[in-house]
Amino acid sequence: MNLKDIIAEIPDFPKKGILFRDISPVLRDPAALSLVVDELAKVIHPSEVDVFAGIESRGFPLACALALRYNKGMIMIRKQGKLPGVTHKVSYNIEYGTAVMEIQANALKKGQKVYICDDLLATGGTAKAAAKLVEKVGGQVSGFVFIIELTDLKGSKAIKDYKYNALVKY
Amino acid sequence: MNLKDIIAEIPDFPKKGILFRDISPVLRDPAALSLVVDELAKVIHPSEVDVFAGIESRGFPLACALALRYNKGMIMIRKQGKLPGVTHKVSYNIEYGTAVMEIQANALKKGQKVYICDDLLATGGTAKAAAKLVEKVGGQVSGFVFIIELTDLKGSKAIKDYKYNALVKY
Repeated sequence: MNLKDIIAEIPDFPKKGILFRDISPVLRDPAALSLVVDELAKVIHPSEVDVFAGIESRGFPLACALALRYNKGMIMIRKQGKLPGVTHKVSYNIEYGTAVMEIQANALKKGQKVYICDDLLATGGTAKAAAKLVEKVGGQVSGFVFIIELTDLKGSKAIKDYKYNALVKY
Repeated sequence: MNLKDIIAEIPDFPKKGILFRDISPVLRDPAALSLVVDELAKVIHPSEVDVFAGIESRGFPLACALALRYNKGMIMIRKQGKLPGVTHKVSYNIEYGTAVMEIQANALKKGQKVYICDDLLATGGTAKAAAKLVEKVGGQVSGFVFIIELTDLKGSKAIKDYKYNALVKY
């Protein structure tokens, strides 16, 4: 099975000129969904991970699937204002202006090893912000897993201090 | 294990006077996360389901976990503007005004049986909108699963035409 045959290409989303790579057809195909989780799990050694972090919101299903596979827990890294309780924030640059991501202050115990999950690595801005948040609350980032990497956007440079894997590269 | 001992209570979120029931501590606790998926799976017979639908965004991890358990796929029901491609919309009443949820037009094949997943049943407005969306694109709603039900808000009335289960009731 070739995931590139299943990932949808949606022109002009979220705006004119962007070709959006949509994992929805992967998630809804039982064989493709299992394959993604199996393949991502191959690159993560159990000794490297105590918790899986999902980046809002397409990272959540991946983080949960991997957490159950490894008998670990999952935490959520979310956009500003979505997480209840005491949170830490990191702002990062997006195309126009800045965005803010948050993590709950009590999300991790000191020294817990975290794998961060998202559907797609683009510029790496969100991924790097997620790593900073994990570290702010005492966690250690073991690495990242993505389904898709858009190599032209050079997100790998933004997270060069960390290990990462992407199943499909464009 | 009593899930009520693990679910966090956050006063005044998202606004003054609301006591928010937060499943984050359940997700990050490996034993609690497994228990939730095991208990939700007990109420779903394999013959009742072809696809699991997650309601944005805390429904996504549950839908994915159950999809993998049953060797099925998952689909996403999202807030307006988040899903690429051709979508169907349903608007529904919230406390002040209306909100809109969307589903991709090609999310389901005609007649597919769908279980809808979310963390919490409150007034049932979102749940009912999700059922309408599933039906709009040709699916049949077999039922709902939730971790939490806030019984005072009478969400069960909003979805009285469907089977539903919630693991914890307040």
